[in-house]
Amino acid sequence: MDMSPLYQRLAGRLLEGIQQARLADGTRLPSIRTLAAQHGVSMTTAMQALRWLETQGSIRARPRSGYFVAKPSERGSTLDAGRWLDPLPELDPQARAHLAIVGDPCEVRLDLAAGEPALYPIDRFSAVFRRLAYRHPNLIGTHVRGTGHEDLRREIVRQAMQYACELDPEEVIVTNGCCEALNLALRAVTRPGDVIAVESPTYFALMRMLRTLELTPLPIPCLPDAGMDLSVLKSMLERTPIKCVVTIANGNNPMGSVASDASKAELVALLRERDIPLIEDDIYGDVCFADVRPRPVRAFDTNGNVLLCSAFSKSLCPGLRLGWIAAGRFTERVKALKYTTSMGTAELQQVAVAEMLSSGGHALHLRRLRKEVQGQQLLLRDAVLRYFPEGTELSDPAGGFVLWAKLPSSDGVSASTRAMFEHARSEGIGFTPGHLFGRGDVYDDCLRLNAGYRWTPKIESALKRLGELAHMSLAEREGR
Amino acid sequence: MDMSPLYQRLAGRLLEGIQQARLADGTRLPSIRTLAAQHGVSMTTAMQALRWLETQGSIRARPRSGYFVAKPSERGSTLDAGRWLDPLPELDPQARAHLAIVGDPCEVRLDLAAGEPALYPIDRFSAVFRRLAYRHPNLIGTHVRGTGHEDLRREIVRQAMQYACELDPEEVIVTNGCCEALNLALRAVTRPGDVIAVESPTYFALMRMLRTLELTPLPIPCLPDAGMDLSVLKSMLERTPIKCVVTIANGNNPMGSVASDASKAELVALLRERDIPLIEDDIYGDVCFADVRPRPVRAFDTNGNVLLCSAFSKSLCPGLRLGWIAAGRFTERVKALKYTTSMGTAELQQVAVAEMLSSGGHALHLRRLRKEVQGQQLLLRDAVLRYFPEGTELSDPAGGFVLWAKLPSSDGVSASTRAMFEHARSEGIGFTPGHLFGRGDVYDDCLRLNAGYRWTPKIESALKRLGELAHMSLAEREGR
Repeated sequence: MDMSPLYQRLAGRLLEGIQQARLADGTRLPSIRTLAAQHGVSMTTAMQALRWLETQGSIRARPRSGYFVAKPSERGSTLDAGRWLDPLPELDPQARAHLAIVGDPCEVRLDLAAGEPALYPIDRFSAVFRRLAYRHPNLIGTHVRGTGHEDLRREIVRQAMQYACELDPEEVIVTNGCCEALNLALRAVTRPGDVIAVESPTYFALMRMLRTLELTPLPIPCLPDAGMDLSVLKSMLERTPIKCVVTIANGNNPMGSVASDASKAELVALLRERDIPLIEDDIYGDVCFADVRPRPVRAFDTNGNVLLCSAFSKSLCPGLRLGWIAAGRFTERVKALKYTTSMGTAELQQVAVAEMLSSGGHALHLRRLRKEVQGQQLLLRDAVLRYFPEGTELSDPAGGFVLWAKLPSSDGVSASTRAMFEHARSEGIGFTPGHLFGRGDVYDDCLRLNAGYRWTPKIESALKRLGELAHMSLAEREGR
Repeated sequence: MDMSPLYQRLAGRLLEGIQQARLADGTRLPSIRTLAAQHGVSMTTAMQALRWLETQGSIRARPRSGYFVAKPSERGSTLDAGRWLDPLPELDPQARAHLAIVGDPCEVRLDLAAGEPALYPIDRFSAVFRRLAYRHPNLIGTHVRGTGHEDLRREIVRQAMQYACELDPEEVIVTNGCCEALNLALRAVTRPGDVIAVESPTYFALMRMLRTLELTPLPIPCLPDAGMDLSVLKSMLERTPIKCVVTIANGNNPMGSVASDASKAELVALLRERDIPLIEDDIYGDVCFADVRPRPVRAFDTNGNVLLCSAFSKSLCPGLRLGWIAAGRFTERVKALKYTTSMGTAELQQVAVAEMLSSGGHALHLRRLRKEVQGQQLLLRDAVLRYFPEGTELSDPAGGFVLWAKLPSSDGVSASTRAMFEHARSEGIGFTPGHLFGRGDVYDDCLRLNAGYRWTPKIESALKRLGELAHMSLAEREGR
């Protein structure tokens, strides 16, 4: 006996009928009322049956005209997407541009700040994963609470120890990526309305995060070769009630700078004496190009005032969304927030990452990754210099995946990368327009490019095309 | 040539020395100053070496007395946990009690609202996982953004269709568990200071979440057999500026009630006419005991006013922390919040879950799970009736994993489950004390018990012991 619900049985009969009668694509189906009468069911059941066939992609609805046999091309995308999806007035245009980029990735990924899968030890990782899933299937079935698997927390502490940054496993909280770590850190030390000092330009998702948390960014210039300009920060601290400072000191996004140890120590001292917490995003720390892995600012901290956020998304396994925070004196507060934000983090991948970190191959992998990314940065830089207008200024990254470019101005008129952006997207080429990295239009003449993908003729020609678009954008401006 | 940092080389020499000299456990090591002089290194290097050995568990530090060779029993837990972990004044005692429970699980898990691993198809799941990891290792290495893998979003829509709840894949956003879904939903429709109507008693993590978001809960009585008391809600709506309503209509936590279709439709109508959004937590919808899976409130919604939150943590794979939200007319806002809260959700497990859902075995698994949990609920109920004081009132769950018990009062004095709780914990028995489920002490004479674990003599004797503690608690109160 068929135990499926009545509407599904009706749907089955209808589909059979469509197939047996070989109804042409686009043929109109009987109305709900007719179907209900024909099959002796309620109109609700008839409607459910049609809706079901619709989700299966077999038929499609047209507003105010009924149901039709779907064309093969329509199948699979037949739902009336966007029914209630009116954009809300609260979403500003920047947020919208943003979501569009995220939701609809381009073919040429010059928009990311990330490596391609081939840069990561995914086959070795896959083997570890399979072994763990086989040996510990309980990890799939066990309720998760708490702050992270102890194997992973211990490995995080050991890794940090290798670059002379002393952490305590008790303060380490495993998160869903660095993004969650930053979000928890900000929520632990701020309230809506607070002013937060950030590098300028800075990571655009951080700008968005501040906005959704109703925090006001106070831009502190980021020096191309030295990170946050501490002289400006110092004078700002005298004048403004800054609630916390966020820094990406190693492999800054988008500048690629690495701050010196002296400047890190100075930053710690500046904030400690004022009791202002520092949130550090060290996600690119493992992808810096110097022989010695730079120490995080946190390594200079002596009283738990630095909330160190990081993740394995740039260094080991972008797809697993695994991050962590060492929250210092804010640990209890961050734990409480983590508990009510996502409760716990899935453990299978934590154990897998712990195993990868503890293996002898990890240090070797990092050395190769750095070399490769550095090489790709040079190729990218070279191509931009060849194809972009004369006078384009480029960052000189000491770490990370991205290159920051500033188009030249001409007769006091500067180029805009917004129009370029739309144009490039329509041709399948992604990059990140500069205006997302600051307040207002201050970086509208800039753009960020990703060196995380291995060089191909397609990337080369994408850069050539971007160069043309940059020339066009400049010419247009001059023509005004 | 040894390329490791100086301090690690020193640590290696020290460890060798300890082993060669067969230093007894507890032997004191030379001071940092002495070590530095002996080995011709800086004091910083000497300290780093000792710290390193400490994280390895080879030695341990005692405050103000130095470093000692670790006893085997001390190895692995030697870090000076709690250095900066002073509890912050902002954490109220409830939050603290809470974190303690979470951080330090008991042996007998009567505190959870979750099944044991054996209730879930973990071996089948493990096989799916291994196959996916083998075939698609790129999922480990690919940067994740966006709102979830389309296979999973489509399966979620199809599952919901089976219980006549129409969703749109475009509004479905995959989250890190139901907890993240609820958190995003609340942040999408409220601001700090808003009043939120909730069932009373209600899920304690929801109460905590409201607190961390600075929202004020307005308790609406939850009827044991019918869910939220709509007559009370209605009169409250007349008098109070309620910003949104949160309901667990199917398998309410902790009451186990399932609201009727009529009452669900009424709730939708009540809120629609006032333009007040409803957040629905349907995580137990798949674990209700009636022959037909109850429809979520969202199934009665016509204008996208209900934000439906759910997860696979109760029905399929507790360990993967995979949830989702169908955000209706708030979709854009929730997407923006998801993006700045955790960016994206790891995809490997999404594809695995999608495959499990689409397999023929899923419906069968759910039928078995429901039967098993229902059977365990009856055993639990029976044990409580046998062991607990006469007059103890019990819920009669129509779904979910938990049983809610109210201890009798005597001469107007009611029992307290707080003291019972500490006592039971010290004996390895977990349960959830009632006061966490409401404001103040209103449910202090109640407790919540978990029926998710298969019956064992250990569970039986834990309940017997809880019964004794309940008797003792009552006797103490009477003796006052």
